[in-house]
Amino acid sequence: MPTVVTTIEALREQLAAARALGQRVGFVPTMGALHAGHASLVEAARRENDCVVASIFVNPTQFGPSEDFSRYPRTLEADLALCEAAGATLVWTPTVDVMYPPGDQTIVEVEQLARLLEGRHRPTHFRGVTTVVMKLLLAVIPDVAYFGQKDFQQQLLIRTMVRDLFLPVRIETCATVREVDGLALSSRNRYLSGVERESARSLSQALFFVRDRIAAGERQLEPLVNEVLARLWATPLVTPDYFTIVSANTLEPVTAPGPDMVALVAARVGSTRLIDNCLLVPPENSPTARS
Amino acid sequence: MPTVVTTIEALREQLAAARALGQRVGFVPTMGALHAGHASLVEAARRENDCVVASIFVNPTQFGPSEDFSRYPRTLEADLALCEAAGATLVWTPTVDVMYPPGDQTIVEVEQLARLLEGRHRPTHFRGVTTVVMKLLLAVIPDVAYFGQKDFQQQLLIRTMVRDLFLPVRIETCATVREVDGLALSSRNRYLSGVERESARSLSQALFFVRDRIAAGERQLEPLVNEVLARLWATPLVTPDYFTIVSANTLEPVTAPGPDMVALVAARVGSTRLIDNCLLVPPENSPTARS
Repeated sequence: MPTVVTTIEALREQLAAARALGQRVGFVPTMGALHAGHASLVEAARRENDCVVASIFVNPTQFGPSEDFSRYPRTLEADLALCEAAGATLVWTPTVDVMYPPGDQTIVEVEQLARLLEGRHRPTHFRGVTTVVMKLLLAVIPDVAYFGQKDFQQQLLIRTMVRDLFLPVRIETCATVREVDGLALSSRNRYLSGVERESARSLSQALFFVRDRIAAGERQLEPLVNEVLARLWATPLVTPDYFTIVSANTLEPVTAPGPDMVALVAARVGSTRLIDNCLLVPPENSPTARS
Repeated sequence: MPTVVTTIEALREQLAAARALGQRVGFVPTMGALHAGHASLVEAARRENDCVVASIFVNPTQFGPSEDFSRYPRTLEADLALCEAAGATLVWTPTVDVMYPPGDQTIVEVEQLARLLEGRHRPTHFRGVTTVVMKLLLAVIPDVAYFGQKDFQQQLLIRTMVRDLFLPVRIETCATVREVDGLALSSRNRYLSGVERESARSLSQALFFVRDRIAAGERQLEPLVNEVLARLWATPLVTPDYFTIVSANTLEPVTAPGPDMVALVAARVGSTRLIDNCLLVPPENSPTARS
Protein backbone atom coordinates (compact mmCIF):
# COMPACT_ATOMS: atom_id res chain seq x y z
CA MET A 1 0.00 0.00 0.00
CA PRO A 2 1.17 3.58 -0.53
CA THR A 3 2.29 5.53 2.52
CA VAL A 4 -0.65 7.54 3.90
CA VAL A 5 -0.05 10.88 5.64
CA THR A 6 -2.43 13.45 7.08
CA THR A 7 -0.46 16.45 8.34
CA ILE A 8 1.58 18.82 6.20
CA GLU A 9 4.63 18.09 8.36
CA ALA A 10 4.40 14.35 7.65
CA LEU A 11 3.78 15.05 3.95
CA ARG A 12 6.83 17.30 3.72
CA GLU A 13 9.00 14.79 5.56
CA GLN A 14 8.14 12.15 2.95
CA LEU A 15 8.67 14.60 0.09
CA ALA A 16 12.03 15.74 1.49
CA ALA A 17 13.17 12.11 1.56
CA ALA A 18 12.11 11.67 -2.09
CA ARG A 19 13.79 14.93 -3.11
CA ALA A 20 16.98 13.89 -1.27
CA LEU A 21 17.10 10.85 -3.56
CA GLY A 22 16.79 13.18 -6.56
CA GLN A 23 13.27 11.94 -7.30
CA ARG A 24 10.91 13.82 -9.57
CA VAL A 25 7.51 14.41 -7.94
CA GLY A 26 4.14 14.12 -9.70
CA PHE A 27 0.91 15.14 -7.96
CA VAL A 28 -2.74 14.19 -8.48
CA PRO A 29 -5.16 16.22 -6.29
CA THR A 30 -8.55 14.52 -5.91
CA MET A 31 -11.74 14.63 -3.83
CA GLY A 32 -11.71 10.84 -3.49
CA ALA A 33 -14.55 8.61 -4.77
CA LEU A 34 -11.94 7.59 -7.29
CA HIS A 35 -12.70 5.99 -10.64
CA ALA A 36 -10.79 5.01 -13.78
CA GLY A 37 -10.48 8.70 -14.72
CA HIS A 38 -8.44 9.35 -11.57
CA ALA A 39 -6.51 6.14 -12.15
CA SER A 40 -5.47 7.45 -15.57
CA LEU A 41 -4.10 10.60 -13.89
CA VAL A 42 -2.10 8.58 -11.35
CA GLU A 43 -0.84 6.34 -14.15
CA ALA A 44 0.26 9.37 -16.19
CA ALA A 45 2.06 10.70 -13.11
CA ARG A 46 3.68 7.29 -12.58
CA ARG A 47 5.04 7.22 -16.14
CA GLU A 48 6.68 10.64 -15.81
CA ASN A 49 7.82 10.77 -12.16
CA ASP A 50 9.55 8.71 -9.47
CA CYS A 51 7.41 9.82 -6.55
CA VAL A 52 3.65 10.04 -7.15
CA VAL A 53 1.53 11.86 -4.57
CA ALA A 54 -2.27 11.67 -4.65
CA SER A 55 -4.33 13.79 -2.27
CA ILE A 56 -7.85 12.96 -1.16
CA PHE A 57 -9.77 15.91 0.28
CA VAL A 58 -13.46 16.73 -0.12
CA ASN A 59 -13.12 20.51 -0.08
CA PRO A 60 -16.09 22.14 1.66
CA THR A 61 -15.44 25.63 0.25
CA GLN A 62 -16.14 24.63 -3.36
CA PHE A 63 -19.65 23.38 -2.60
CA GLY A 64 -22.55 25.83 -2.58
CA PRO A 65 -24.98 25.88 0.35
CA SER A 66 -27.55 23.77 -1.55
CA GLU A 67 -24.99 21.38 -3.05
CA ASP A 68 -23.95 17.85 -2.14
CA PHE A 69 -20.97 18.35 0.23
CA SER A 70 -22.38 16.27 3.07
CA ARG A 71 -23.50 13.41 0.83
CA TYR A 72 -20.51 13.54 -1.54
CA PRO A 73 -19.27 9.92 -1.70
CA ARG A 74 -16.41 9.02 0.70
CA THR A 75 -14.81 5.69 -0.20
CA LEU A 76 -11.36 5.81 1.42
CA GLU A 77 -10.52 2.09 1.47
CA ALA A 78 -11.37 1.63 -2.20
CA ASP A 79 -9.56 4.89 -3.04
CA LEU A 80 -6.34 3.68 -1.39
CA ALA A 81 -6.53 0.39 -3.28
CA LEU A 82 -7.01 2.27 -6.57
CA CYS A 83 -4.09 4.59 -5.75
CA GLU A 84 -1.86 1.62 -5.09
CA ALA A 85 -2.88 -0.22 -8.24
CA ALA A 86 -2.33 2.90 -10.35
CA GLY A 87 1.14 3.50 -8.90
CA ALA A 88 0.83 6.21 -6.22
CA THR A 89 3.69 6.12 -3.71
CA LEU A 90 2.21 8.58 -1.23
CA VAL A 91 -1.42 9.43 -0.42
CA TRP A 92 -2.15 12.63 1.47
CA THR A 93 -5.52 12.70 3.27
CA PRO A 94 -5.68 16.07 5.05
CA THR A 95 -8.56 16.87 7.38
CA VAL A 96 -10.59 20.08 7.12
CA ASP A 97 -8.60 21.40 10.11
CA VAL A 98 -5.31 20.79 8.31
CA MET A 99 -6.49 22.66 5.21
CA TYR A 100 -8.45 25.39 7.03
CA PRO A 101 -7.08 25.86 10.54
CA PRO A 102 -8.64 28.49 12.84
CA GLY A 103 -7.88 31.99 11.56
CA ASP A 104 -7.52 30.87 7.93
CA GLN A 105 -8.72 33.73 5.72
CA THR A 106 -6.70 33.83 2.49
CA ILE A 107 -8.37 33.22 -0.85
CA VAL A 108 -7.09 32.94 -4.42
CA GLU A 109 -9.36 33.99 -7.26
CA VAL A 110 -9.07 33.88 -11.05
CA GLU A 111 -11.30 36.81 -11.78
CA GLN A 112 -12.66 36.81 -15.34
CA LEU A 113 -12.64 33.08 -16.14
CA ALA A 114 -14.34 32.20 -12.85
CA ARG A 115 -17.38 34.30 -13.69
CA LEU A 116 -18.29 32.40 -16.88
CA LEU A 117 -20.24 29.17 -17.48
CA GLU A 118 -19.95 27.06 -14.32
CA GLY A 119 -19.27 30.27 -12.39
CA ARG A 120 -22.69 31.62 -13.36
CA HIS A 121 -24.38 28.53 -11.99
CA ARG A 122 -22.10 28.01 -8.99
CA PRO A 123 -21.01 31.53 -7.92
CA THR A 124 -18.56 30.60 -5.13
CA HIS A 125 -17.39 27.30 -6.62
CA PHE A 126 -14.20 28.37 -8.39
CA ARG A 127 -12.99 30.58 -5.57
CA GLY A 128 -13.09 27.45 -3.43
CA VAL A 129 -11.34 25.40 -6.11
CA THR A 130 -8.50 27.82 -6.83
CA THR A 131 -7.89 28.48 -3.12
CA VAL A 132 -7.70 24.81 -2.18
CA VAL A 133 -5.65 23.86 -5.25
CA MET A 134 -3.16 26.63 -4.47
CA LYS A 135 -2.82 25.27 -0.92
CA LEU A 136 -2.44 21.71 -2.20
CA LEU A 137 0.13 22.71 -4.83
CA LEU A 138 2.16 24.74 -2.33
CA ALA A 139 2.08 21.98 0.27
CA VAL A 140 3.56 19.55 -2.28
CA ILE A 141 5.33 21.81 -4.85
CA PRO A 142 5.47 18.95 -7.36
CA ASP A 143 7.30 19.04 -10.67
CA VAL A 144 4.03 18.26 -12.45
CA ALA A 145 0.37 18.22 -11.34
CA TYR A 146 -2.30 16.29 -13.26
CA PHE A 147 -5.92 17.29 -13.85
CA GLY A 148 -8.70 15.79 -15.92
CA GLN A 149 -10.07 17.43 -19.05
CA LYS A 150 -13.57 16.48 -17.88
CA ASP A 151 -13.54 19.59 -15.67
CA PHE A 152 -12.46 21.78 -18.57
CA GLN A 153 -13.06 25.19 -17.01
CA GLN A 154 -11.40 24.05 -13.79
CA GLN A 155 -8.17 22.98 -15.49
CA LEU A 156 -8.12 26.27 -17.44
CA LEU A 157 -8.52 28.29 -14.22
CA ILE A 158 -5.76 26.29 -12.55
CA ARG A 159 -3.43 26.81 -15.51
CA THR A 160 -4.22 30.53 -15.42
CA MET A 161 -3.63 30.78 -11.66
CA VAL A 162 -0.32 28.92 -11.88
CA ARG A 163 0.83 31.10 -14.78
CA ASP A 164 -0.29 34.39 -13.16
CA LEU A 165 1.29 33.65 -9.77
CA PHE A 166 4.56 32.30 -11.22
CA LEU A 167 4.14 28.96 -9.48
CA PRO A 168 6.94 26.72 -10.82
CA VAL A 169 4.72 23.69 -11.41
CA ARG A 170 3.81 22.20 -14.80
CA ILE A 171 0.08 21.49 -15.23
CA GLU A 172 -0.87 18.46 -17.32
CA THR A 173 -4.42 17.93 -18.53
CA CYS A 174 -5.32 14.31 -19.25
CA ALA A 175 -8.06 13.10 -21.60
CA THR A 176 -11.50 12.36 -20.21
CA VAL A 177 -12.13 8.66 -19.53
CA ARG A 178 -15.56 7.45 -20.68
CA GLU A 179 -17.90 4.53 -20.30
CA VAL A 180 -18.43 2.38 -23.40
CA ASP A 181 -21.54 4.41 -24.31
CA GLY A 182 -19.67 7.72 -24.03
CA LEU A 183 -20.69 8.91 -20.54
CA ALA A 184 -17.75 10.77 -18.95
CA LEU A 185 -16.64 9.13 -15.71
CA SER A 186 -17.57 11.22 -12.67
CA SER A 187 -17.80 10.54 -8.96
CA ARG A 188 -21.36 11.87 -9.20
CA ASN A 189 -22.45 9.20 -11.72
CA ARG A 190 -23.11 6.91 -8.78
CA TYR A 191 -26.02 9.17 -7.80
CA LEU A 192 -27.84 8.21 -11.04
CA SER A 193 -30.72 5.73 -11.06
CA GLY A 194 -30.98 3.23 -13.92
CA VAL A 195 -33.24 5.42 -16.04
CA GLU A 196 -31.20 8.55 -15.26
CA ARG A 197 -28.07 6.67 -16.29
CA GLU A 198 -29.73 5.97 -19.65
CA SER A 199 -30.61 9.65 -20.12
CA ALA A 200 -27.11 10.77 -19.07
CA ARG A 201 -25.77 9.40 -22.37
CA SER A 202 -27.40 12.36 -24.09
CA LEU A 203 -24.66 14.76 -22.91
CA SER A 204 -21.75 13.03 -24.63
CA GLN A 205 -23.97 12.18 -27.59
CA ALA A 206 -24.70 15.88 -28.05
CA LEU A 207 -20.97 16.72 -27.82
CA PHE A 208 -19.93 14.03 -30.30
CA PHE A 209 -22.68 15.01 -32.72
CA VAL A 210 -21.39 18.59 -32.73
CA ARG A 211 -17.76 17.42 -32.97
CA ASP A 212 -18.54 15.21 -35.98
CA ARG A 213 -20.63 17.84 -37.77
CA ILE A 214 -17.88 20.44 -37.34
CA ALA A 215 -15.17 17.98 -38.44
CA ALA A 216 -17.34 17.35 -41.52
CA GLY A 217 -17.30 21.05 -42.40
CA GLU A 218 -20.39 22.52 -40.72
CA ARG A 219 -19.78 26.26 -40.29
CA GLN A 220 -23.14 27.40 -38.86
CA LEU A 221 -22.62 27.05 -35.12
CA GLU A 222 -25.77 28.68 -33.81
CA PRO A 223 -28.30 26.36 -35.52
CA LEU A 224 -26.10 23.39 -34.56
CA VAL A 225 -26.14 24.42 -30.88
CA ASN A 226 -29.86 25.06 -31.01
CA GLU A 227 -30.42 21.62 -32.49
CA VAL A 228 -28.54 19.76 -29.77
CA LEU A 229 -30.09 21.91 -27.03
CA ALA A 230 -33.54 20.97 -28.34
CA ARG A 231 -32.53 17.31 -28.25
CA LEU A 232 -31.28 17.64 -24.68
CA TRP A 233 -34.48 19.36 -23.58
CA ALA A 234 -36.42 16.54 -25.27
CA THR A 235 -34.52 13.85 -23.36
CA PRO A 236 -36.46 12.48 -20.36
CA LEU A 237 -35.10 13.61 -16.94
CA VAL A 238 -32.53 16.00 -18.55
CA THR A 239 -32.58 19.75 -17.77
CA PRO A 240 -29.72 21.51 -19.56
CA ASP A 241 -27.97 24.46 -17.85
CA TYR A 242 -25.99 25.27 -20.99
CA PHE A 243 -24.57 23.84 -24.18
CA THR A 244 -22.09 26.22 -25.79
CA ILE A 245 -19.14 26.44 -28.14
CA VAL A 246 -16.38 28.71 -26.84
CA SER A 247 -12.69 29.50 -27.22
CA ALA A 248 -10.67 26.86 -25.36
CA ASN A 249 -8.36 29.65 -24.14
CA THR A 250 -10.73 32.42 -23.06
CA LEU A 251 -14.10 30.61 -22.80
CA GLU A 252 -15.61 33.46 -24.81
CA PRO A 253 -18.32 32.38 -27.30
CA VAL A 254 -17.16 31.78 -30.86
CA THR A 255 -19.42 32.49 -33.81
CA ALA A 256 -17.52 30.75 -36.61
CA PRO A 257 -15.36 27.61 -36.63
CA GLY A 258 -11.63 28.11 -35.91
CA PRO A 259 -8.80 26.49 -34.00
CA ASP A 260 -8.91 25.92 -30.21
CA MET A 261 -12.66 25.56 -29.79
CA VAL A 262 -14.41 23.49 -27.18
CA ALA A 263 -18.04 22.48 -26.74
CA LEU A 264 -19.16 22.51 -23.10
CA VAL A 265 -22.33 21.09 -21.64
CA ALA A 266 -23.86 21.15 -18.17
CA ALA A 267 -27.19 19.58 -17.28
CA ARG A 268 -29.13 18.14 -14.44
CA VAL A 269 -30.11 14.52 -14.93
CA GLY A 270 -32.78 13.94 -12.34
CA SER A 271 -31.30 15.85 -9.38
CA THR A 272 -27.67 15.15 -10.33
CA ARG A 273 -25.74 17.89 -12.11
CA LEU A 274 -23.27 16.59 -14.72
CA ILE A 275 -20.78 18.40 -16.98
CA ASP A 276 -18.83 17.26 -20.02
CA ASN A 277 -16.92 18.77 -22.93
CA CYS A 278 -15.23 17.99 -26.23
CA LEU A 279 -12.50 19.77 -28.20
CA LEU A 280 -13.65 20.70 -31.71
CA VAL A 281 -11.50 20.59 -34.82
CA PRO A 282 -12.90 22.01 -38.07
CA PRO A 283 -11.53 20.37 -41.23
CA GLU A 284 -9.19 23.27 -42.09
CA ASN A 285 -7.54 22.81 -38.68
CA SER A 286 -7.38 19.03 -38.62
CA PRO A 287 -3.91 17.39 -38.72
CA THR A 288 -4.65 16.10 -42.23
CA ALA A 289 -5.66 19.50 -43.53
CA ARG A 290 -2.59 21.14 -42.03
CA SER A 291 -0.08 18.52 -43.20
CA MET B 1 27.55 46.15 -8.40
CA PRO B 2 24.94 43.44 -7.87
CA THR B 3 23.70 41.56 -10.93
CA VAL B 4 20.54 43.22 -12.26
CA VAL B 5 17.85 41.11 -13.99
CA THR B 6 14.43 42.01 -15.36
CA THR B 7 12.71 38.86 -16.62
CA ILE B 8 11.62 35.93 -14.48
CA GLU B 9 13.66 33.60 -16.70
CA ALA B 10 16.87 35.58 -16.00
CA LEU B 11 16.01 35.76 -12.29
CA ARG B 12 15.47 32.01 -12.09
CA GLU B 13 18.68 31.30 -13.97
CA GLN B 14 20.65 33.29 -11.37
CA LEU B 15 18.77 31.64 -8.50
CA ALA B 16 19.34 28.15 -9.92
CA ALA B 17 23.07 28.87 -10.04
CA ALA B 18 23.02 29.99 -6.38
CA ARG B 19 20.96 26.95 -5.35
CA ALA B 20 23.35 24.65 -7.24
CA LEU B 21 26.14 25.98 -4.97
CA GLY B 22 23.99 25.12 -1.94
CA GLN B 23 23.39 28.79 -1.18
CA ARG B 24 20.67 29.96 1.13
CA VAL B 25 18.51 32.69 -0.44
CA GLY B 26 17.18 35.79 1.35
CA PHE B 27 14.74 38.15 -0.35
CA VAL B 28 13.85 41.81 0.21
CA PRO B 29 10.89 42.98 -1.92
CA THR B 30 10.78 46.79 -2.28
CA MET B 31 9.15 49.56 -4.31
CA GLY B 32 12.51 51.33 -4.67
CA ALA B 33 13.13 54.89 -3.39
CA LEU B 34 15.29 53.04 -0.92
CA HIS B 35 16.40 54.45 2.42
CA ALA B 36 18.21 53.21 5.54
CA GLY B 37 15.12 51.18 6.50
CA HIS B 38 15.45 49.11 3.34
CA ALA B 39 19.23 48.92 3.87
CA SER B 40 18.60 47.35 7.28
CA LEU B 41 16.45 44.66 5.61
CA VAL B 42 19.13 43.88 3.03
CA GLU B 43 21.75 43.80 5.79
CA ALA B 44 19.62 41.38 7.83
CA ALA B 45 19.26 39.20 4.74
CA ARG B 46 23.02 39.38 4.17
CA ARG B 47 23.79 38.20 7.72
CA GLU B 48 21.53 35.13 7.38
CA ASN B 49 21.91 34.10 3.72
CA ASP B 50 24.51 33.57 1.00
CA CYS B 51 22.49 34.96 -1.88
CA VAL B 52 20.52 38.16 -1.23
CA VAL B 53 17.87 39.18 -3.78
CA ALA B 54 16.24 42.62 -3.64
CA SER B 55 13.36 43.43 -5.97
CA ILE B 56 12.41 46.94 -7.05
CA PHE B 57 8.88 47.25 -8.44
CA VAL B 58 6.42 50.11 -7.98
CA ASN B 59 3.26 48.02 -7.99
CA PRO B 60 0.39 49.89 -9.67
CA THR B 61 -2.36 47.64 -8.24
CA GLN B 62 -1.76 48.69 -4.63
CA PHE B 63 -2.33 52.40 -5.35
CA GLY B 64 -5.86 53.80 -5.29
CA PRO B 65 -7.10 55.94 -8.20
CA SER B 66 -6.43 59.18 -6.30
CA GLU B 67 -3.08 58.05 -4.85
CA ASP B 68 0.51 58.81 -5.80
CA PHE B 69 1.42 55.97 -8.21
CA SER B 70 2.56 58.20 -11.06
CA ARG B 71 4.59 60.53 -8.82
CA TYR B 72 5.92 57.82 -6.50
CA PRO B 73 9.71 58.43 -6.39
CA ARG B 74 11.80 56.36 -8.85
CA THR B 75 15.51 56.52 -7.99
CA LEU B 76 17.01 53.44 -9.65
CA GLU B 77 20.69 54.47 -9.74
CA ALA B 78 20.74 55.40 -6.06
CA ASP B 79 18.75 52.26 -5.23
CA LEU B 80 21.30 50.01 -6.93
CA ALA B 81 24.14 51.72 -5.07
CA LEU B 82 22.31 51.24 -1.74
CA CYS B 83 21.61 47.56 -2.59
CA GLU B 84 25.28 47.01 -3.31
CA ALA B 85 26.47 48.76 -0.16
CA ALA B 86 24.02 46.77 1.98
CA GLY B 87 25.10 43.45 0.48
CA ALA B 88 22.55 42.46 -2.16
CA THR B 89 23.94 40.01 -4.70
CA LEU B 90 21.03 40.16 -7.15
CA VAL B 91 18.56 42.96 -7.91
CA TRP B 92 15.37 42.10 -9.77
CA THR B 93 13.68 45.05 -11.51
CA PRO B 94 10.62 43.60 -13.26
CA THR B 95 8.52 45.79 -15.55
CA VAL B 96 4.73 46.05 -15.22
CA ASP B 97 4.46 43.71 -18.22
CA VAL B 98 6.59 41.09 -16.48
CA MET B 99 4.43 41.21 -13.35
CA TYR B 100 1.07 41.66 -15.11
CA PRO B 101 1.26 40.25 -18.64
CA PRO B 102 -1.82 40.42 -20.88
CA GLY B 103 -4.55 38.10 -19.59
CA ASP B 104 -3.33 38.26 -15.98
CA GLN B 105 -6.38 37.95 -13.71
CA THR B 106 -5.47 36.09 -10.52
CA ILE B 107 -5.68 37.83 -7.16
CA VAL B 108 -4.78 36.79 -3.61
CA GLU B 109 -6.74 38.27 -0.73
CA VAL B 110 -6.45 38.04 3.05
CA GLU B 111 -10.07 38.62 3.83
CA GLN B 112 -10.67 39.78 7.42
CA LEU B 113 -7.35 41.51 8.18
CA ALA B 114 -7.44 43.46 4.90
CA ARG B 115 -10.73 45.14 5.82
CA LEU B 116 -9.43 46.82 8.99
CA LEU B 117 -7.49 50.06 9.59
CA GLU B 118 -5.54 50.83 6.40
CA GLY B 119 -8.09 48.71 4.49
CA ARG B 120 -10.87 51.08 5.54
CA HIS B 121 -8.97 54.06 4.17
CA ARG B 122 -7.47 52.30 1.13
CA PRO B 123 -10.07 49.69 0.07
CA THR B 124 -8.13 48.00 -2.76
CA HIS B 125 -4.64 48.51 -1.32
CA PHE B 126 -4.04 45.18 0.43
CA ARG B 127 -5.48 43.09 -2.40
CA GLY B 128 -2.79 44.70 -4.57
CA VAL B 129 -0.12 44.10 -1.93
CA THR B 130 -0.90 40.45 -1.23
CA THR B 131 -1.25 39.63 -4.93
CA VAL B 132 2.06 41.19 -5.91
CA VAL B 133 3.92 39.82 -2.88
CA MET B 134 2.64 36.32 -3.67
CA LYS B 135 3.94 36.70 -7.23
CA LEU B 136 7.29 38.03 -6.01
CA LEU B 137 7.66 35.28 -3.39
CA LEU B 138 6.79 32.55 -5.91
CA ALA B 139 9.16 33.95 -8.52
CA VAL B 140 12.03 33.78 -6.02
CA ILE B 141 10.90 31.13 -3.46
CA PRO B 142 13.53 32.33 -0.97
CA ASP B 143 14.37 30.65 2.31
CA VAL B 144 13.53 33.89 4.13
CA ALA B 145 11.82 37.13 3.08
CA TYR B 146 12.28 40.39 5.00
CA PHE B 147 9.70 43.09 5.64
CA GLY B 148 9.74 46.26 7.76
CA GLN B 149 7.69 46.65 10.92
CA LYS B 150 6.84 50.20 9.80
CA ASP B 151 4.09 48.72 7.62
CA PHE B 152 2.72 46.70 10.51
CA GLN B 153 -0.60 45.61 8.99
CA GLN B 154 1.14 44.71 5.72
CA GLN B 155 3.64 42.37 7.39
CA LEU B 156 0.80 40.76 9.37
CA LEU B 157 -1.21 40.18 6.17
CA ILE B 158 1.82 38.71 4.44
CA ARG B 159 2.51 36.38 7.38
CA THR B 160 -1.14 35.32 7.33
CA MET B 161 -1.13 34.73 3.56
CA VAL B 162 2.08 32.68 3.71
CA ARG B 163 0.74 30.61 6.60
CA ASP B 164 -2.71 30.05 5.04
CA LEU B 165 -1.37 29.04 1.62
CA PHE B 166 1.40 26.78 3.02
CA LEU B 167 4.12 28.75 1.25
CA PRO B 168 7.43 27.34 2.53
CA VAL B 169 9.07 30.73 3.12
CA ARG B 170 10.00 32.20 6.52
CA ILE B 171 8.85 35.81 7.01
CA GLU B 172 11.11 38.07 9.07
CA THR B 173 9.91 41.44 10.31
CA CYS B 174 12.68 43.96 11.02
CA ALA B 175 12.48 46.92 13.39
CA THR B 176 11.48 50.32 12.03
CA VAL B 177 14.43 52.62 11.33
CA ARG B 178 13.88 56.21 12.50
CA GLU B 179 15.35 59.65 12.13
CA VAL B 180 17.03 61.11 15.22
CA ASP B 181 13.80 62.88 16.20
CA GLY B 182 11.75 59.67 15.92
CA LEU B 183 10.18 60.04 12.45
CA ALA B 184 9.90 56.58 10.84
CA LEU B 185 11.83 56.40 7.57
CA SER B 186 9.51 56.26 4.57
CA SER B 187 9.95 56.79 0.86
CA ARG B 188 7.09 59.29 1.15
CA ASN B 189 8.96 61.51 3.67
CA ARG B 190 10.62 63.19 0.69
CA TYR B 191 7.24 64.70 -0.21
CA LEU B 192 7.28 66.74 3.04
CA SER B 193 8.09 70.46 3.07
CA GLY B 194 10.22 71.85 5.92
CA VAL B 195 7.24 72.77 8.10
CA GLU B 196 5.45 69.52 7.30
CA ARG B 197 8.61 67.62 8.29
CA GLU B 198 8.47 69.40 11.69
CA SER B 199 4.83 68.42 12.18
CA ALA B 200 5.47 64.83 11.09
CA ARG B 201 7.38 64.28 14.36
CA SER B 202 4.02 64.30 16.13
CA LEU B 203 3.17 60.76 14.94
CA SER B 204 6.10 59.00 16.60
CA GLN B 205 5.84 61.35 19.59
CA ALA B 206 2.24 60.22 20.07
CA LEU B 207 3.26 56.55 19.82
CA PHE B 208 6.16 56.90 22.26
CA PHE B 209 4.02 58.86 24.71
CA VAL B 210 1.50 56.01 24.76
CA ARG B 211 4.24 53.36 24.95
CA ASP B 212 5.86 55.10 27.93
CA ARG B 213 2.58 55.67 29.76
CA ILE B 214 1.60 52.02 29.35
CA ALA B 215 5.06 50.81 30.40
CA ALA B 216 4.64 53.01 33.50
CA GLY B 217 1.42 51.20 34.43
CA GLU B 218 -1.38 53.22 32.78
CA ARG B 219 -4.41 50.91 32.38
CA GLN B 220 -7.01 53.33 31.01
CA LEU B 221 -6.51 53.05 27.26
CA GLU B 222 -9.46 55.07 25.99
CA PRO B 223 -8.58 58.38 27.70
CA LEU B 224 -4.96 57.87 26.69
CA VAL B 225 -5.91 57.43 23.02
CA ASN B 226 -8.24 60.41 23.19
CA GLU B 227 -5.46 62.53 24.67
CA VAL B 228 -2.97 61.75 21.89
CA LEU B 229 -5.63 62.10 19.19
CA ALA B 230 -6.42 65.59 20.53
CA ARG B 231 -2.71 66.43 20.40
CA LEU B 232 -2.47 65.20 16.81
CA TRP B 233 -5.52 67.23 15.76
CA ALA B 234 -3.91 70.25 17.46
CA THR B 235 -0.68 69.86 15.50
CA PRO B 236 -0.45 72.23 12.51
CA LEU B 237 -0.85 70.52 9.10
CA VAL B 238 -1.71 67.14 10.69
CA THR B 239 -5.05 65.39 9.94
CA PRO B 240 -5.21 62.03 11.72
CA ASP B 241 -7.00 59.12 10.01
CA TYR B 242 -6.73 56.95 13.12
CA PHE B 243 -4.76 56.35 16.29
CA THR B 244 -5.66 53.03 17.88
CA ILE B 245 -4.42 50.33 20.22
CA VAL B 246 -5.12 46.83 18.90
CA SER B 247 -4.07 43.22 19.23
CA ALA B 248 -0.82 42.69 17.33
CA ASN B 249 -2.18 39.33 16.11
CA THR B 250 -5.78 40.11 15.10
CA LEU B 251 -5.77 43.95 14.84
CA GLU B 252 -8.98 43.90 16.91
CA PRO B 253 -9.28 46.78 19.42
CA VAL B 254 -8.13 46.05 22.98
CA THR B 255 -9.79 47.68 25.93
CA ALA B 256 -7.31 46.83 28.70
CA PRO B 257 -3.50 46.41 28.66
CA GLY B 258 -2.21 42.92 27.92
CA PRO B 259 0.53 41.18 25.95
CA ASP B 260 0.93 41.57 22.15
CA MET B 261 -0.53 45.04 21.76
CA VAL B 262 0.42 47.56 19.14
CA ALA B 263 -0.42 51.24 18.75
CA LEU B 264 -1.04 52.23 15.13
CA VAL B 265 -1.31 55.71 13.69
CA ALA B 266 -2.13 57.05 10.22
CA ALA B 267 -2.35 60.75 9.38
CA ARG B 268 -2.03 63.14 6.54
CA VAL B 269 0.70 65.72 7.01
CA GLY B 270 -0.11 68.36 4.46
CA SER B 271 -1.13 66.18 1.50
CA THR B 272 1.23 63.32 2.39
CA ARG B 273 -0.24 60.29 4.17
CA LEU B 274 2.10 58.72 6.74
CA ILE B 275 1.73 55.64 8.97
CA ASP B 276 3.70 54.45 11.99
CA ASN B 277 3.32 52.02 14.88
CA CYS B 278 4.86 50.91 18.15
CA LEU B 279 4.60 47.65 20.10
CA LEU B 280 3.29 48.21 23.65
CA VAL B 281 4.45 46.35 26.75
CA PRO B 282 2.57 46.88 30.02
CA PRO B 283 4.72 46.46 33.17
CA GLU B 284 3.29 43.01 34.03
CA ASN B 285 4.41 41.78 30.58
CA SER B 286 7.82 43.46 30.51
CA PRO B 287 10.91 41.22 30.61
CA THR B 288 11.76 42.52 34.13
CA ALA B 289 8.29 41.81 35.47
CA ARG B 290 8.28 38.33 34.00
CA SER B 291 11.77 37.37 35.22
